[in-house]
Amino acid sequence: MARLVMKFGGTSVADMERIAHVAARVKREVAAGNQVAVVVSAMAGATNQLVAYCNQAAKLPDRREYDVVVASGEQVTSGLLALALQDIGVPARSWMGWQLPVTTSGAHGSARILDVGAEALEAGFERGEVAVVAGFQGVGPEERITTLGRGGSDTSAVALAAAIHAERCDIFTDVDGVYTTDPRIVAKARKLDRVTYEEMLEMASLGAKVLQTRSVELAMVHNVRVQVLSSFEDRPGTLVCDEGEIVEQEVVSGIAYSKDEAKITLIRVADKPGVAASIFGPLADANVNVDMIVQNVSEDGRSTDMTFTIGRAELERALQVINSLKEQIGFAQILSDANVVKVSVIGVGMRSHAGVASRMFRALAEKGINIQVISTSEIKVSVLIAAEYTELAVRALHTAFGLDAD
Amino acid sequence: MARLVMKFGGTSVADMERIAHVAARVKREVAAGNQVAVVVSAMAGATNQLVAYCNQAAKLPDRREYDVVVASGEQVTSGLLALALQDIGVPARSWMGWQLPVTTSGAHGSARILDVGAEALEAGFERGEVAVVAGFQGVGPEERITTLGRGGSDTSAVALAAAIHAERCDIFTDVDGVYTTDPRIVAKARKLDRVTYEEMLEMASLGAKVLQTRSVELAMVHNVRVQVLSSFEDRPGTLVCDEGEIVEQEVVSGIAYSKDEAKITLIRVADKPGVAASIFGPLADANVNVDMIVQNVSEDGRSTDMTFTIGRAELERALQVINSLKEQIGFAQILSDANVVKVSVIGVGMRSHAGVASRMFRALAEKGINIQVISTSEIKVSVLIAAEYTELAVRALHTAFGLDAD
Repeated sequence: MARLVMKFGGTSVADMERIAHVAARVKREVAAGNQVAVVVSAMAGATNQLVAYCNQAAKLPDRREYDVVVASGEQVTSGLLALALQDIGVPARSWMGWQLPVTTSGAHGSARILDVGAEALEAGFERGEVAVVAGFQGVGPEERITTLGRGGSDTSAVALAAAIHAERCDIFTDVDGVYTTDPRIVAKARKLDRVTYEEMLEMASLGAKVLQTRSVELAMVHNVRVQVLSSFEDRPGTLVCDEGEIVEQEVVSGIAYSKDEAKITLIRVADKPGVAASIFGPLADANVNVDMIVQNVSEDGRSTDMTFTIGRAELERALQVINSLKEQIGFAQILSDANVVKVSVIGVGMRSHAGVASRMFRALAEKGINIQVISTSEIKVSVLIAAEYTELAVRALHTAFGLDAD
Repeated sequence: MARLVMKFGGTSVADMERIAHVAARVKREVAAGNQVAVVVSAMAGATNQLVAYCNQAAKLPDRREYDVVVASGEQVTSGLLALALQDIGVPARSWMGWQLPVTTSGAHGSARILDVGAEALEAGFERGEVAVVAGFQGVGPEERITTLGRGGSDTSAVALAAAIHAERCDIFTDVDGVYTTDPRIVAKARKLDRVTYEEMLEMASLGAKVLQTRSVELAMVHNVRVQVLSSFEDRPGTLVCDEGEIVEQEVVSGIAYSKDEAKITLIRVADKPGVAASIFGPLADANVNVDMIVQNVSEDGRSTDMTFTIGRAELERALQVINSLKEQIGFAQILSDANVVKVSVIGVGMRSHAGVASRMFRALAEKGINIQVISTSEIKVSVLIAAEYTELAVRALHTAFGLDAD
């Protein structure tokens, strides 16, 4: 007998037929002798409707009331799934965030889970009862309803799995697992059987939107084994787990890309101590998140060119900040380019394997792709390239690192 | 400065435009220096949709989960109205049943309010904050969400008004008050300025569906002054209050009718002790509610005819019960008629005025209307007549008791 958390997203509970399908899926795990807690999102579209109402009700909606309105979506699906389970003979009851409780910070709209009360669930398991927990919601200071931000149901599920010491947290979604790269670009992309938390985090933060980043962080901290699988097909997905669980680790497990990038270059910045701080301090103050930074070697010993990347949505804001500081920073010219993409190779195996970066650069050079900026971490090499080369680069790297399916 | 409860039903909060309209209405009371608690229903149609989901999810929905699903409708509108109020500069916050708390019995789907926690609201009033309370919902034993049954938001509002000692509880609805009779039948029906709790109870139980019966009972017990008024027009409605507040009490304040009636007559029932019990005991056991009862004087001293009325929906069940007991009861024949209507004249003034019944019978006789059954209470005289005479009877009585508008 094992204990499982099963999480179903909005498309999996989009209508009553799918909710009945989910109930049947849960029943199979119960029939197999497992203790099951289910976490549900709102019906697909419901949250958008509720958010639209809030934005109609007020120009700047108070996040506390926004949470009250938006959290109702998960309340509905948790009640309905409990009913659907009972209807097929599976004892079940719904749990709202405030009932367990799922205690969170007071950051309404993007609250962090502080604690998950598991006592009541344990008692329910003893009675053979499936717990259907409303995802995405919790209760904050002064007993007010909080939400965790979009996609927060993944985090609810992982936190719950940690609290009840579940053997696994299954995240049912509309894709059937984590792939070596975007299958829409690379037809030969392979589904990974296993991937480490660290790799998953890099992939998530680079735009592979299978799991919410915070849920992966939480899984890593609490060592919760997470499986990503399809709610429509009946086969194993991808297990996100600790490195130790992966026997034969590939050097590179995936190629990710992010289109949400923009590049700024400052020409002829004074090459003196403190200049970097004079640029990046004010950007941080303006909430502009700087990612990659390259400072060229100074030719004349007095000035240098500085290039960095930021989120594309923040480009205008960043340019305003820097132009307003032109005097203090002292540069000749500012160039910007929103037509860039970051492509990354990711793999915990590269910790112990040299040559990943050079193999990457060679593969790109063979296709005539110019690298504009490079950054590396322990388990990742990223390059910034012109957006038009995205597909070519991803395919070339996928082949170069031996990831193509047979 | 007064303290007010304002309750808005589903049609008053049916869309964002109307919610904004409600917010403006509340703002006026706040601007006039009042402390205001608002009770809201779900958006018109929302509750029906949620109920439909529950009935799709399970053949016999567990009432506890039903309550979880259905209570979400009021959660949405309370949050949205709080946002709309804030948007026009009125400090406001939403309160769910479990937050105040509104403690109820565990009779899910039709729970009774046991207590309303007012402390948090009092603190809010001190801060100049409008409380927006989700109607229809509460929290039962084991911290589970309960609902009060359809129309329960009226009861929420009255219970809240009692708890915070409000000067008045304004029920905003789609009619502009309580009328002397159904204006669809009598063009000269007049809106009443005031009506007593007792009269309102009789009218409500006789089919004038302005206020939920339980809310009137609660108002009477706690002496909460309730005003029924239009949420679309801006003029005073009808005040439901204690008799002492009504200076010039009319003898009769209204004419009500109920089409939900059926009549059963048992011919030649043995006229012996215990026969009534042998009929009405089994009917009560079968949950058939018997209203009027008439037993004719026995002609031969050995048998009698027994006539009684029941709800029309219960006619089939009642006939089955009685036919199954034919041997024990001992009667010659059973007759039934669903084509009957109960017409009543209501007025607390008749306690001190004789002659109301005879004036009623004369008015009906003048129109050639035959009275089948009569029943009276302290403040009401009811007669059962053939359904086809309904309009004629109501109009004749409205005129006979001087209720016609000028």
